[in-house]
Amino acid sequence: MFEAAELGRKISREDFDAMAPGLRTELLDLQQQLREADFPVIILFAGVDGAGKNETVNLLNEWMDPRWIVTRAYGPPSDEERERPEYWRYWRDLPPKGKVGLFMSSWYHHPLINRVTGKTNPAELDEQLERIVHFEKTLADEGALILKFWMHLSQKAQKKRLKSLEKDPLTAWQVTKQDWEHWEMYDSFISTAERLIMHTSKGHAPWQIVEGADPRYRSAVVLQTLKEAIVKHLANREAVKKVNAEIKGKAKGKKAAEPSVLATQPSILSSLDMTQTLEGAEYNQALQEQRARLAHLYHVAREKGVSTALVFEGWDAAGKGGTIRRLTNALNARDYQVIPIAAPTEEERAQHYLWRFWRHIARAGRVTVFDRSWYGRVLVERVEGFCTEEAWRRAYGEIVDFEEQLTAHGIVMCKFWLHITAEEQLERFNARGEIEYKKWKLTDEDWRNREKWGPYEQAVNELVEKTSTTNAPWTLVEANSKNFARVKVMRTVADALEAALGKAGRRKKD
Amino acid sequence: MFEAAELGRKISREDFDAMAPGLRTELLDLQQQLREADFPVIILFAGVDGAGKNETVNLLNEWMDPRWIVTRAYGPPSDEERERPEYWRYWRDLPPKGKVGLFMSSWYHHPLINRVTGKTNPAELDEQLERIVHFEKTLADEGALILKFWMHLSQKAQKKRLKSLEKDPLTAWQVTKQDWEHWEMYDSFISTAERLIMHTSKGHAPWQIVEGADPRYRSAVVLQTLKEAIVKHLANREAVKKVNAEIKGKAKGKKAAEPSVLATQPSILSSLDMTQTLEGAEYNQALQEQRARLAHLYHVAREKGVSTALVFEGWDAAGKGGTIRRLTNALNARDYQVIPIAAPTEEERAQHYLWRFWRHIARAGRVTVFDRSWYGRVLVERVEGFCTEEAWRRAYGEIVDFEEQLTAHGIVMCKFWLHITAEEQLERFNARGEIEYKKWKLTDEDWRNREKWGPYEQAVNELVEKTSTTNAPWTLVEANSKNFARVKVMRTVADALEAALGKAGRRKKD
Repeated sequence: MFEAAELGRKISREDFDAMAPGLRTELLDLQQQLREADFPVIILFAGVDGAGKNETVNLLNEWMDPRWIVTRAYGPPSDEERERPEYWRYWRDLPPKGKVGLFMSSWYHHPLINRVTGKTNPAELDEQLERIVHFEKTLADEGALILKFWMHLSQKAQKKRLKSLEKDPLTAWQVTKQDWEHWEMYDSFISTAERLIMHTSKGHAPWQIVEGADPRYRSAVVLQTLKEAIVKHLANREAVKKVNAEIKGKAKGKKAAEPSVLATQPSILSSLDMTQTLEGAEYNQALQEQRARLAHLYHVAREKGVSTALVFEGWDAAGKGGTIRRLTNALNARDYQVIPIAAPTEEERAQHYLWRFWRHIARAGRVTVFDRSWYGRVLVERVEGFCTEEAWRRAYGEIVDFEEQLTAHGIVMCKFWLHITAEEQLERFNARGEIEYKKWKLTDEDWRNREKWGPYEQAVNELVEKTSTTNAPWTLVEANSKNFARVKVMRTVADALEAALGKAGRRKKD
Repeated sequence: MFEAAELGRKISREDFDAMAPGLRTELLDLQQQLREADFPVIILFAGVDGAGKNETVNLLNEWMDPRWIVTRAYGPPSDEERERPEYWRYWRDLPPKGKVGLFMSSWYHHPLINRVTGKTNPAELDEQLERIVHFEKTLADEGALILKFWMHLSQKAQKKRLKSLEKDPLTAWQVTKQDWEHWEMYDSFISTAERLIMHTSKGHAPWQIVEGADPRYRSAVVLQTLKEAIVKHLANREAVKKVNAEIKGKAKGKKAAEPSVLATQPSILSSLDMTQTLEGAEYNQALQEQRARLAHLYHVAREKGVSTALVFEGWDAAGKGGTIRRLTNALNARDYQVIPIAAPTEEERAQHYLWRFWRHIARAGRVTVFDRSWYGRVLVERVEGFCTEEAWRRAYGEIVDFEEQLTAHGIVMCKFWLHITAEEQLERFNARGEIEYKKWKLTDEDWRNREKWGPYEQAVNELVEKTSTTNAPWTLVEANSKNFARVKVMRTVADALEAALGKAGRRKKD
């Protein structure tokens, strides 16, 4: 794979100096165009030590305007990072739309080094590469331009390079013992790199192998590749925008399709027994029981560092707020955070739609309650047409992948759909107008949403079908009786936590 | 001080139940009003263990809408927190405008406990309390409503309370060994608390001492106090807005005052020798020398965890960007971050004006370069009237305090004003239009700013006078010669870092 990067290609100083000013002007100009663009540029550098990763990143910072570039390199994770899923730190560092992010090895570092040093086996490596593919795919699907450069050196060239760095007192410190250790493992490093590149070089995030021996050659390749990729991507995004606008325009012209026979089939929601209630003493006792269980379990969870993420979705007026309050009431206020999900902020809009959820993932032992969530994409955004059909169809997989990362990290996850019947909703809407401190809750939007009951019901059905997994199951809650719903939610959370703590306990003993 | 909080005051269940629904409605209603308000509410709870801090915070979360409340409690700092000044974690947790933040002990915890356990002496305690006063003052000055509740119990009542918690298996876990240890130190705790409350109870952030023995009484006091404070603050802010609008209106009507005799006196800028240059071989040699010094010094700084914060201000076209690039060019791109300061984002606008700078304070060993900075408040915001005169006059002290926290934490700080003459600026503006890749840099705003040269010069003069401190000095850079400016900046940074590393080295040996 790397033979073509050991040909000793060079560019003379004269040739480089002749091309440099023009190329630089173009890159600066493109950077200005990017500032208005609707996507970030993510450039990753990996490769053989001494093949010019640092120098190239420094050059990009020098040539381009460093104000619109962020450079990210990673050492061992901080404790705040260790307490979250591995990719949390990459998500929080992603450049917003219009900016360029330069990443040093980053999410490729551990998969590569752990395999080379024998800490993982080939199957584990493949699993980690699969994670990378998913990560880059979801960024690219939202528009990100992703470029990856593998800076290559032959073993001989690497030795020469390290020696020459060591000779110069100004650069000697750059060469560490680890560099030489890696040099010794060159063959294993290269064969792992081959596997890595083969598995993760995709149309949406291609690897470019760069011969790194000659600084001018490698700089020219990176700069030229970058320039062309940005030009192409800017054009592509324009084209995509046009197509999407056309699709939207056509959809508007059309009359809404008659609900098909399939749409009128019973949905998973219609199978719920909505008559269940829980009243009086029975309710009070059940509530107290679950409160006590939760209080105890969350004390243990805090001690053991087991986090919980709870998702609440449901019809307007289904009682999400009240249910959340009864639940959090059993907890210590210092341990939980309720995150109301409304319209994204400006900083959030400049990022991938999952970014704003990643940023709320809490440290070990905490409870995060999402009052509405990332499911907005396949609910309101789908039904209201706020995103393209392609985007919400893709979202099921992205969401499952996201939740999988949370649960794989040991986070306990429960997702609730609070269901009420259309009649019950109407009654509650009418009642709201009458209770002073509940008036603010009822908005015109609530009435508009109500008119789309059918499409929402269909969306809920599909959401449960596609995103209810063993580790992050959906619980459908019969919420015509608020009491019944509250106790069911609390019991479900307690059960899930109990099971997880049992596991966590066992894991420790092993 | 606490005698009045040991009177055994109680509220009967009937009385409480009679007042509760009305109070709750009012609080929920106020919360809705707050969402549109231009200030955050910061409520802090401290006091004797067992006096109901947790319960009260839980109650507030239960009664009010938890979606617009954040609750913050602090354990030992994470490593990301330890690598920054102490208050970084409080700044990052501040609620935005329209939200309520409930803080458990927080910035009061360490001053109190460290004094009680003898880790600090009275003078050190006072210093820490002074820091608190500054912190709360700057938040209040920007509009925050700050309330602090000291939950009190007599030693006898505390014992009773701890015993009763221990008896109930559901709450026994809440009582720790530390609680009993603190109980033993009750007298010392109380006398320290007195000092703390006396020093930090200010008009803008008053302490309210609450008798904590009776849950209903203490809840009623907190809820009632909170309600009244919010009502009053909402009204106050409206009044302030009106007054400011009037002042602004009057200022608009008036003709600009003739520059006074004082304003035409030579400023600190006019004393600079603007003829200094550095050309050809001399420049190249000096540049290479400083580059090498910086590269070496920053390698050591990274190893030792010494961070640097560099501030660049200056006239438009003074060469900030080019100077920053020459400087960062000597560094490893992974170790520095250039932060361009432009208009604040929506999330930043919802916070204290210093918040957006606190969020960029880097971890240990990193370099943060601010291309424009918090000095915007006393430069552009002052000159353009974007903030009130009272606000920018106050800002000098706030800025010195902010920088003092950074340098006290060991961060090396240099601040540069890049100065060019008005004639030089004109020449550069004209030249910019001609160089292809510099065209984008020249905006209409640049021409407008140029017309206000006089007021800006006055502002710069005052800024240097009021904010150049030993640990965070201003360096005025004669920048008519770009070469001269670049080398001067690099040398200044290298000198400062060398001095700091010398100190850091000595400190380690001590």
